Amino acid sequence: MKGKTDAEEKRKAFRDEFYKTLGKVAKEEQVKFIVQGTIKADVLETVRGIKTQHNVLEQIGINPRIYGYSILEPLKELYKPEVRLVARKLGLPIEISERMPFPGPALSIRVLGEVTPKKIAILRRATKIVEEETKNLGTFQNFAVLHNDKATGIKKGRRVYGNIITVRVVVSEDAVTAKAKQVSYEILEKISDRVTTEIPSVVRCLYDLTHKPPATIEFE
Amino acid sequence: MKGKTDAEEKRKAFRDEFYKTLGKVAKEEQVKFIVQGTIKADVLETVRGIKTQHNVLEQIGINPRIYGYSILEPLKELYKPEVRLVARKLGLPIEISERMPFPGPALSIRVLGEVTPKKIAILRRATKIVEEETKNLGTFQNFAVLHNDKATGIKKGRRVYGNIITVRVVVSEDAVTAKAKQVSYEILEKISDRVTTEIPSVVRCLYDLTHKPPATIEFE
Repeated sequence: MKGKTDAEEKRKAFRDEFYKTLGKVAKEEQVKFIVQGTIKADVLETVRGIKTQHNVLEQIGINPRIYGYSILEPLKELYKPEVRLVARKLGLPIEISERMPFPGPALSIRVLGEVTPKKIAILRRATKIVEEETKNLGTFQNFAVLHNDKATGIKKGRRVYGNIITVRVVVSEDAVTAKAKQVSYEILEKISDRVTTEIPSVVRCLYDLTHKPPATIEFE
Repeated sequence: MKGKTDAEEKRKAFRDEFYKTLGKVAKEEQVKFIVQGTIKADVLETVRGIKTQHNVLEQIGINPRIYGYSILEPLKELYKPEVRLVARKLGLPIEISERMPFPGPALSIRVLGEVTPKKIAILRRATKIVEEETKNLGTFQNFAVLHNDKATGIKKGRRVYGNIITVRVVVSEDAVTAKAKQVSYEILEKISDRVTTEIPSVVRCLYDLTHKPPATIEFE
């Protein structure tokens, strides 16, 4: 992903690397089929050109056999609430059936601009804080985003030209639409205090007010 | 300011251009003295290296005579509440004595990253919306910031890789410290709806939760 700053370029670079790496393993292990958890919302957004979900291939004209295997997608006609229903019916543990969605390209699309190990390390710390402070809200998805933009702050009386973290908490059924949660200022202030105190480079903490549409849940 | 992305570089470029331009006018008009509204907080932050306030020169070793005139600063020992008191005692209209602070380099430091006429035009529209929707809050300062980072959104069913606006509303006495105002979600949602509806390129609206310190009031 080095040098890539555009959201779609980053997503496509992830997809290429993901399937190439998987292809090597599949060849070594003589794997013929990969079972993948693609759901309906992934397919719709990719086909409509909203966002490239890395797990959508055939629907946009990419034959997965170029990577050396076939792909099985048993959930691709289902939306998230139906997927959870299937998981519950199958008796899967609650940590699986009620699990919060997490993006295919992981934290790379929550680091705006170019992804670097340093930025990922900062975002990991912010993610942990946001997850801890929002875990009892019962919301659809809660996470932190690290901006590429910087801002001026003051720590111990000295200037810090540092990082900006945005907190995103949304309510949704199927991820196709979502509402920004009206989280209490008590919780938001705690998060803001923690990210700016526990992470030395962070000087500012923002809260995302935007519903989907016009925003999407993830920034990239 | 072309090509400048660092906050302090932008502030210093503004200062140089400001005094050079003023110097030309002063020479034409044979002006010997410029009266300037520098206040104590400007001096402190510049001397401490927090932010370069363009109007602070002698205190950091710049002789204003290089620009061709002398500078008089009758308010430089006063903080904002005392400045307002002087204005009221002088019988100045309320629009002057209670006026919201506005940065010397104007909107250029509320456009993160490089400043362009296009970005200033977007920020002007967002500023108007934020000022309208927060005018009755009685807060110290209310404004909009345009990020350089972009984010994905959806408008009329189509992908827009667009702009991010942050809303900043603070309570303060003297600008030396400030608290992020706990603005109601009713007002914030209205602002978010308006900036993403009325400004085609804007897909996301954030609210700044950070107090000063560790943030500053302005982003740059």
